[in-house]
This record gives sequence, C-alpha cells and structure tokens, in this order.
Amino acid sequence: MTGIAVVGAGYWGPNLIRNFANNPKCDALWVCDRDPARLENIGRRFPAATLSENFGSIIESDADAVVIATPVGTHYALAKSTLEAGKHVFVEKPLAASTKEAEELVELADKKDLRLMVGHTFEYSPPVRKVSSLIDSGEMGDIFFVSSMRVNLGLFQNDISVIWDLAPHDFSILFSWIKDKPVSVSATGKGFVQAGIPDVAFISTTFESGAVAHIEVSWLAPSKLRRTTVVGSKKMLVYDDTEVVEKVKIYDRGVDFPDPKTFGEWQLSYRTGDILVPRLDQFEPLALETSEFLDSIEEGRAPLTDGRSGLQVVRALEAAQKSVEAGGAPVAL
Amino acid sequence: MTGIAVVGAGYWGPNLIRNFANNPKCDALWVCDRDPARLENIGRRFPAATLSENFGSIIESDADAVVIATPVGTHYALAKSTLEAGKHVFVEKPLAASTKEAEELVELADKKDLRLMVGHTFEYSPPVRKVSSLIDSGEMGDIFFVSSMRVNLGLFQNDISVIWDLAPHDFSILFSWIKDKPVSVSATGKGFVQAGIPDVAFISTTFESGAVAHIEVSWLAPSKLRRTTVVGSKKMLVYDDTEVVEKVKIYDRGVDFPDPKTFGEWQLSYRTGDILVPRLDQFEPLALETSEFLDSIEEGRAPLTDGRSGLQVVRALEAAQKSVEAGGAPVAL
Amino acid sequence: MTGIAVVGAGYWGPNLIRNFANNPKCDALWVCDRDPARLENIGRRFPAATLSENFGSIIESDADAVVIATPVGTHYALAKSTLEAGKHVFVEKPLAASTKEAEELVELADKKDLRLMVGHTFEYSPPVRKVSSLIDSGEMGDIFFVSSMRVNLGLFQNDISVIWDLAPHDFSILFSWIKDKPVSVSATGKGFVQAGIPDVAFISTTFESGAVAHIEVSWLAPSKLRRTTVVGSKKMLVYDDTEVVEKVKIYDRGVDFPDPKTFGEWQLSYRTGDILVPRLDQFEPLALETSEFLDSIEEGRAPLTDGRSGLQVVRALEAAQKSVEAGGAPVAL
Amino acid sequence: MTGIAVVGAGYWGPNLIRNFANNPKCDALWVCDRDPARLENIGRRFPAATLSENFGSIIESDADAVVIATPVGTHYALAKSTLEAGKHVFVEKPLAASTKEAEELVELADKKDLRLMVGHTFEYSPPVRKVSSLIDSGEMGDIFFVSSMRVNLGLFQNDISVIWDLAPHDFSILFSWIKDKPVSVSATGKGFVQAGIPDVAFISTTFESGAVAHIEVSWLAPSKLRRTTVVGSKKMLVYDDTEVVEKVKIYDRGVDFPDPKTFGEWQLSYRTGDILVPRLDQFEPLALETSEFLDSIEEGRAPLTDGRSGLQVVRALEAAQKSVEAGGAPVAL
Repeated sequence: MTGIAVVGAGYWGPNLIRNFANNPKCDALWVCDRDPARLENIGRRFPAATLSENFGSIIESDADAVVIATPVGTHYALAKSTLEAGKHVFVEKPLAASTKEAEELVELADKKDLRLMVGHTFEYSPPVRKVSSLIDSGEMGDIFFVSSMRVNLGLFQNDISVIWDLAPHDFSILFSWIKDKPVSVSATGKGFVQAGIPDVAFISTTFESGAVAHIEVSWLAPSKLRRTTVVGSKKMLVYDDTEVVEKVKIYDRGVDFPDPKTFGEWQLSYRTGDILVPRLDQFEPLALETSEFLDSIEEGRAPLTDGRSGLQVVRALEAAQKSVEAGGAPVAL
Repeated sequence: MTGIAVVGAGYWGPNLIRNFANNPKCDALWVCDRDPARLENIGRRFPAATLSENFGSIIESDADAVVIATPVGTHYALAKSTLEAGKHVFVEKPLAASTKEAEELVELADKKDLRLMVGHTFEYSPPVRKVSSLIDSGEMGDIFFVSSMRVNLGLFQNDISVIWDLAPHDFSILFSWIKDKPVSVSATGKGFVQAGIPDVAFISTTFESGAVAHIEVSWLAPSKLRRTTVVGSKKMLVYDDTEVVEKVKIYDRGVDFPDPKTFGEWQLSYRTGDILVPRLDQFEPLALETSEFLDSIEEGRAPLTDGRSGLQVVRALEAAQKSVEAGGAPVAL
Repeated sequence: MTGIAVVGAGYWGPNLIRNFANNPKCDALWVCDRDPARLENIGRRFPAATLSENFGSIIESDADAVVIATPVGTHYALAKSTLEAGKHVFVEKPLAASTKEAEELVELADKKDLRLMVGHTFEYSPPVRKVSSLIDSGEMGDIFFVSSMRVNLGLFQNDISVIWDLAPHDFSILFSWIKDKPVSVSATGKGFVQAGIPDVAFISTTFESGAVAHIEVSWLAPSKLRRTTVVGSKKMLVYDDTEVVEKVKIYDRGVDFPDPKTFGEWQLSYRTGDILVPRLDQFEPLALETSEFLDSIEEGRAPLTDGRSGLQVVRALEAAQKSVEAGGAPVAL
Repeated sequence: MTGIAVVGAGYWGPNLIRNFANNPKCDALWVCDRDPARLENIGRRFPAATLSENFGSIIESDADAVVIATPVGTHYALAKSTLEAGKHVFVEKPLAASTKEAEELVELADKKDLRLMVGHTFEYSPPVRKVSSLIDSGEMGDIFFVSSMRVNLGLFQNDISVIWDLAPHDFSILFSWIKDKPVSVSATGKGFVQAGIPDVAFISTTFESGAVAHIEVSWLAPSKLRRTTVVGSKKMLVYDDTEVVEKVKIYDRGVDFPDPKTFGEWQLSYRTGDILVPRLDQFEPLALETSEFLDSIEEGRAPLTDGRSGLQVVRALEAAQKSVEAGGAPVAL
C-alpha cells in the first residue's frame, strides 16, 4: 500500500486527487496547495485527505510518493526535493522546463533507485493505445509519416508558449507510436496575441528510419481540432479525438509501386479497401495512469511513461522552441 | 475577336478547349497535340477547331494567342517560342520549372508588350474570391496566419514532386489573399513511394508583415482534404473545398488582449459570436479564367494572374524544394 | 423564500436537487426516496437537506412545494396528494399516465390556486428558445412543417413505451413553437425487443393552421440522432442537439410560386441565400427551469410550462399510443 | 443482338440513350421525341441513331424493344401499344399512374410473353446491392425496421406529388431488401407551395413479418438528405447516398433481451462492436440496368426489376396517396 501526496490543486490536480482517492492501492492521501480556499474545497470532497499549505510538510510526511501538478517552472525544484527526500515522484507534463533539468531528474531518480513518472495522459487513452497496438502488430506496415493538429480558441498561457502547452501531448503520443530515434526538429511559430509567446506553431520532426512527423498546435483557431493521420506502407488511419464514437478509422488504402521491368514503364496501383472503426475500450485514461504509478512503485519497475520518455519530450520541445527562434532552421536532437 | 490555339489535349487541355470554344470572344480555335487519337477525339467534339500534331504550325498560324497545357518541363520552351513569334501566351500552372525560366518569360513578355497569363484557376473560383473580398474589406482584420491542407490518395506524378504538383494551388491562393512580401520558406518533405520525389511536404512561409502560412500537401492520405483556415485579428474563417454547400464559414471569434493596467494583471477575453456561411456565386472558374485572358488581350492590360504572379509562385516552389533538400533550413525569397 | 421537497433521487432527481440547492430563492430543502442508500449519498453532497424515506412526512413538512421525479405511473397520486395538502407541485415529464389524470391535476391546481408545473426541460434550453424567438419574430414566415428525430441505442424502459419516454420532449418543444391547435395524431410503432412495448414509433400530427409535424423516436438506432427541421414560408432551420457548437442553422432558403398569368405558365423560383449559425447563450436549462418554478410561486402566476402544457403533451402521447394500437388510424385531439 | 428505341429525350432519356449506345449487345438505336431541337442534339452526339418525332414510326420500326422515358401520365398508353406491337418494353419509374394500369401491363406482357421492365435504377447501384447482400446473407439478422429520408429543396413537379416523384426510389429499394408481403400503408402529406400537390409526405408501411418501414420525402428541405437506416436483430446499418466514400456503414450493435428467470428480473444488454465501411464496387447503375434489360431479352427471362416489382411499387404509391387523402388512415395493400 502506498501513501500519495498531491502538490497543486488548481486546474488539473483535483482530477489526480480523485483518481488516487478512488484507487484501493493508495491508502493515504496528502494534498498540498498554497491557496487555503482550494484546500478547503478539496477537504470537503475528500474528507480523509491530510491538507497542507506547505510543501515542506509534505517532504517530512510519511507519503511514499509525491505527485506534482504545479506550473512547469516549478517542476524541477519540487521533483528534485522529493527525490532527495527518498520519495517516488510523478510530474505532470512536461517533465521540466529544459533538457538540462529533465536530465538531472532522470539521473537523480536512477541514482536513488526511485520511480520517476511523467503525466503523459494520452498514452493511457483507449484510442492512442488502439493505434499503438495496430502499429506494433505490423498491420499498418512501415510508418511513413504522422500529421497532427491540436488547435482551438484559447486557453492562452502567459508563462509558456503553445509549444510547451499543447505539443507535449503530440510528442508523447508520437514517441509512443514510433519507437525510433528522432533526428531533428524544425519549427515555425509566432506570437500574435502576446508578442514573444508563440500562440501558433508548425513543427516537423524527422526520424532515423526516414519517417517524418508534423504537429500543428494553436490557441488561435476557429474550431477545435484534434486530428492525427498516420500513413503506413500497408494501411492508413485517422485518430480524431473530437469524435464521440468514431475516434479511430483504419483505411485499407495504399499505393503499390512495382519495379518497372522495362525502361519507360511506370505504373502505380492504388489500393482502396474497407474502412474499419474499431470498438474502443471505455475507461478514464487517468485511472489507468494513476494505477500504473502505484503499480510501478509496488513492483519496483519503471512506469510506462518514465523519466526517459519525459526527457525525450522535453528535448523535442526545446528543439522546437530553438528552431522557432532561429527562423525555422532545423535543430538536431 | 481573338484566335486561340491550345497546345496539349491531355488531362486538362480539353477543359480549356471547351471554355474557349464556348466563349463568343474567341472566333477561331486551333488545337495541337502529338497524339493523333486525342486530336481525333477533340475533332469530334469541336468540329470547328483546326487540328495539328505539330507545334511549328501553331507558331505559323494566324492564332493571336497560344494556351500551353503540356507537362511543366516544356512550359518554358513553348512559351518562349510563342512570345518570340509575337503571340500572347497562357501557361498552365506552374508557369515554369525554375525561377530563372519564369523570370525570362516575364521579361520577354514585357519587352514584346504581349500578355503572359498563368492558369492559377483557383483564383477565379467563387469561394477563393469570396475570401479575398472578406480580407480586402478589412472584415477579417489583420491576417495573422493561414494553414492549408491539400491531401488525397494519388495521383502520383513521376516527373515532379507533390510540391510542384499541388502547392501551386495553395501558393497562388495565398499570394492573392496576402498581398505582402513573402520573406522565407522552410519545408520538410519526403518521397516514400518513389525515392527522391517527395509525395508529402510541410511548407512554412513567413511574410514581411509578420504573417505566417503553412501548407501541407500529400499524395498519400487516407481521405481527400482541401481545408484552409485563415485567422485574422477580427475574424477567422475556414474554406473547405470538399464541402458541397458550406465551402466558406466565417467565425466571429477572436481574442482580445487588453493592456494590463497594473503589474501582475493579465487577462484575455475570448470573443465568440455567430458563424456565417455566405451564399457563393455559382460559375465555373475556368469560364471566368478564359474570359479574363481574352479580355486582357482585347483591352491591352495585364491579366489578373499575370506572369509576375506566376513567377512569385515558382519562386516559392523552388525555395520549398531547396529547403527540403537542405533538411528543412529556411530559404530566403 | 420557498422551501422545496424533492421526491425521487434516482436518475434525474439529483439534478433537480442540485439546482434547487444552488438557487438562493430556495431556503429549505427536503429529499425523499424509499432507498436509504440513495438518501445517504444525497446527504453527503447536500448536508443541509432534510432526508426522509416516507412521502407522508413530506406532506406534513413545512415545504411550500413538492417536486416529483418518480416513475410516470406514480405522478398522478403523488401530485394529487401534494395539491390536496395545499402545496405547489412540480412534476417531471410526462405530467401523468393519461389524459384523465392530467386533467384532474390541472383542475385541482386551479381550484386550490396552486402552481402546477411540468418538467419540460428542453423548453428552457438555449437552442429551443432561440428557435422560438425566430418563429415568434416572424423571421421564419408561416411554419409549414416540423420533422424531428430522437433516436439512439437504448435506454429501454419496461414500464412505458418509447412514445411516453422520448416523445414528450418533441411534443413539448413542438407545442412551444407552434402555438396552434393540434387536430389529430396518427402513429405507427412496434415493439421489437419487448413485444407490446413499442421501441420505435413514427408519429404525425396535424394542426388547425395546416401545419404538419412528424416525430420519429426509437431506442433501436445505430447512432444517436437529435435532429429537428423546421420549414417556414420564409426560412428553414435545422436544430441538431448532438452538435457541440452548430446546434442551430438558419437557412435563407425557400420556394416562390408566382401566380401564373397565363394558362400553361408554370414556374417556381428557388431562393438560396446565406446560412447563419447564431451564437447561443450558455446556461444549464435546469437552472432556468427551477428558477421559473420558484419565481412562479413567489409571483403567484402560472409558470411557462404549466399544467395545461403538460396536459396537452399527455393528450398527444395518449393519441399516438391509441393510433399505434389502431394500426395507424388517425386519432382526433 | 437487340435493336432498342428510346422514347423521350428530355431530362433522363439521354442517360438511357448513352448507355444503350455504349452497350455492344445493342446493335441498332432509335430515338423518338416530339421536340425537333432535342432530336437534333441527340443526333449530334449519337450519329448512328435513327431519329423520329413520331411514336407510330417506332412501333412500325424493326426495333425489338422500346424504352419509355416520358411523363408518368403517358406510360400506360405507350407501353400498351408497344406490347401490342409485339415488342419488349422498358418503362421509367413509376411503371404507371395507377394500380389498374400497372396490372394491365403486367397481364399483357405475360400473355404476349414479352419482357416488361421498370427503371428502378437504385436497385442496380453498388450501395443498395451491398445492403441487399448483407440482408440476404443473414448478417443483419431479422429486419426490424427501415427508416428513410429523401429530401431536398426542389425540384417541384406540377403533374405529380412528391410521393409519386421521390418515393418510387424508396419503395423499390425497400421491396428489394424486404422480400416480404407489405400489409398496409399510412401516410400524412401536404402541399404547402402548390395546394393539393403534396410537397412533403411521411409514409409508414407494415409487413406481414412485423417489419415496419418509414419514408420521408420532401421537395421542401434546407439541405439534401438521402439517408436510410436499417435495423436488424443482429446488426444495424446506415446507407447515406450523399456521402462520397462512406455510403454504407455497418454497425455491430444490438440489444439482447434474455428471458427473465425470476419474477422481477429484467435486464437488457446492449452490444456495441466495430463499425465497418465496406469498399463498394464502382460502376454506373444505369450501365448495369440497361445490360439487364438486354440480357433478359436475349435469355428470354424476367429481368430483375420486372413488371411485378413495378406493380408492387405503384400499389404502394397509390395506397400512400389514398391515405394522405383520408387524413392518414391506413390503406390495406
């Protein structure tokens, strides 16, 4: 049994608190926030939780693990203190504000043999897992490219750009699907509403295998789009998270390019077969995510979305930001 | 009255022939193609046309103007011969295979005081013109960015990449909307089916005003998408050419960022109003395009899509291709 | 200030309880249910509520008004007792299980000068109100017909048919839009899963003005549809409640039929203009509905969805059921 | 080899002419129309056709079969003359203007042992045939009900109502799917633009098996809908003819109603599986339809859409019309 302390009870924290509170493997719950009004609210909903306005008291508590759901700029310092106190740590995405910080956390967790997990929630969602299994089974063939859009009107941040706000979702999903080394990132972005804080960005990533990925993120869009296309050598699919039922569509489509036998012969054949909308499991991704953290602690093993995957995402975000600042020049990973 | 000779009666040529044949301002029609079977077919449909397998005979004919609908690689030589023979010329998009060629054609037409027009057909289509008028009227406010997708399965070309095949549409539309100097282009692309001939590309363009545009083109896609989003400071719109009725949707949406009065104050307000689907005129873009060519000849004035606009598009295509070859590095325009 | 007692804390009751609890005009809250587990759950969420397993205690309480959210078969008896005890009453839709019962309740409320309100929630929803105001303003012209679909897979009931379960929504919406006398109802329906309990029905209603309405309701459908078309002499509109943003679409379309001047002349002109998706207010219909009940009590006036509108809906439901039983023969209202 | 004469070269006739002209089994072609301008136009496109303004000359010609594509009111007389002259006959839908007329034609063709075929074109379309094969194979289970919408703005007719104009499509599709005896039809309809000529109708049909079908047809609708839902005991499907690619969607969905073992036990289970969009063949329905007519003549057998199926549709249309006139009362078939 594991005692969990959640730090940060703002926008996202209450969802984590609810899931840990409902998980029978979590036998004690602390909640820490600087805002007494928030704590009072949490106290009403979760009377068994121990409340605190002071992070120091969490470090000194009997909690086995700390869950950090605070602004990105504070992730590194809070996670470091937690690990140094000998406690496991779960950090909301992105893991840290820089590659350097993320690397340090990974090293520290390794040295202390503690669990370091990142809240890449989409990797626990039914459609993303379904796509993973389709790719892993070979049904899609070689993955040629992935093109993803995550745009809507708002919610603007003033401490981080749209790249650090929305692209962690796409990069974590992408790296869970394409288990290949990313080579370079080039990005164009711009802050139209707040100068200097990009609110729209177009990010290309190349992989060692030759695969290519593109991510469009924006806080400025007429309608909400969450659409990812995956093109493989055998099949293609669309994952649209705004659809209620038809979130994943698998297209039995492709192009065959037979070797020309004679000079001048050139002929492609287009394959067009059925479209399948597979039934998806129905569960809350966060329930699986919090379970994975508790299990990884109990079993003494790395969680699915461990520090290394968090570091890989931070590295890509940092490269995208540098590329934007360099006018779109590619940045090696 | 103008005599028109159409060179090339393959995939697209017959549409041009039909529109010139139906236009009362065109009083004589020549059609030239190397393939006798195609000519015979044209002859049956347009008994009044003079047919020829030989481009030389077109140059020597009484035709006032020549319309070139042949593969891109032949545009320059055929258009140059036409202009040198003192005839006006209409060239299918893209104008030429390189900036150098396009520049020469523009100069030659200027020197000879002949009309040089490019077949940027979309600029004559009702939805593109509606968007133009919305932007020109100031209703959209300042244009922040444009994001465009033009993807489907096929039709692969083996002489040109998807950039030269599909992006001319997007660049010509884009430059007709944003009448501002493009500064640089960066692009990521890859040939998955035919090595070395990109079948997918992601292209970013920046403008002097700070506006940004992104174009995704692909011959490898599970479903056909023709979707362009325009985000302005006052309104946003979506132009979806696959829609039968709702091709243009205007969103009265935006973000207001009031100057903070006190330090630490930071507040955005999101504006969400009506959505309008304007009624569009119903006409064939090609009818307007061929009319414009005939009118520009009769009136001795530059056509809407003149050599300069053709050159600007070729310059952007060439820059995109160079950027792909340079691994995504931005290329100045 | 009004004291409210909610009877029935099953599927829908908790929503009513929450809205009364949040309304400052409600100063005391009782909740009654036969199931102690449900009551305990309510007690945790609403500690200020007085709980009871016994309807008698509600009747004897100081509550000014009773809200009945129990199965249809019990509406009449509970509402009657409430009125006889001199308390105002709010009954979930449909008001009662028969016209006779509904008439008695209306008469009793009148005699006692007490408020009788029915939970026709959709009449308080932003899209339905928007359509009402469009019709009332004359913008739609004369209403020709309304066609409505309300279908999905499940949730089957075993005490009432799909007509009594889903059609109250459509009839109450319909009668709020068309303030004209309904003349007759004919319906075809069938129970495929449970013999004798229709799970699909097609219901036509005619009005004195000549307007026609059609309602399709079903528990057996491959996907959820909530789509209503309103055709007026000047405009047409679609109200689709499954849409997140574009719930109401107004089409400036129609047909003009000029009087033929000469024999044999016959010509219609089709009008096709813009489509408008109006911005809708954002509020919970139930908040407005519960407010209306409290206000009507305070102000001593009939609520918007009063007993008469509840009776009109029950009369239509009963007629539809009779028509189904008569093999589709029309039943006069 | 068969000689074919097409009578009527208005809106639809030219499509039939083109398909017979392209079919190698048709070795001689006559075209008859009262309008010389139409004939001239046909002559240019089909130089091999023999043209005539006079039906009598067709009857006296060597044509083996006559194809009638004239207004409904003339079908009976023209088809009767054709059969009496010993020629096979193909009649556009609906077969005739009344059951009586249709019955006579069927009898006459039988007596003379001539082919009588009706132009129920949709029965030859890939999506309708795909649905047929799904039903015939038992994959859908027992067919519970079919609900169909065929609505758009225009094209109004002034000689027949929307029932006789659009519902022949739905009835012919329906009877090709449900090969069961229809029992009765009830319908509500109304003429809003032209008094007395219904421009909208809601038609219910019941079958001996207990299956139910509903058809909504309208010339007054804000947008074009061609949507048919088929609910079977094992699967459900949607056939949407306005979709370009996803015309047929098969839902592995249903409800299981286990026999309750104990009193009071009542539990349904909802089944939700994959959705499949099957690849459809790509061909022009009319090519298959005209082929079927030629084959049926050559092979001396009844065509797929023979006089009996034409009669069945006319009977249903007549019943629907009578029910509308009787205020919705069911009419036995």
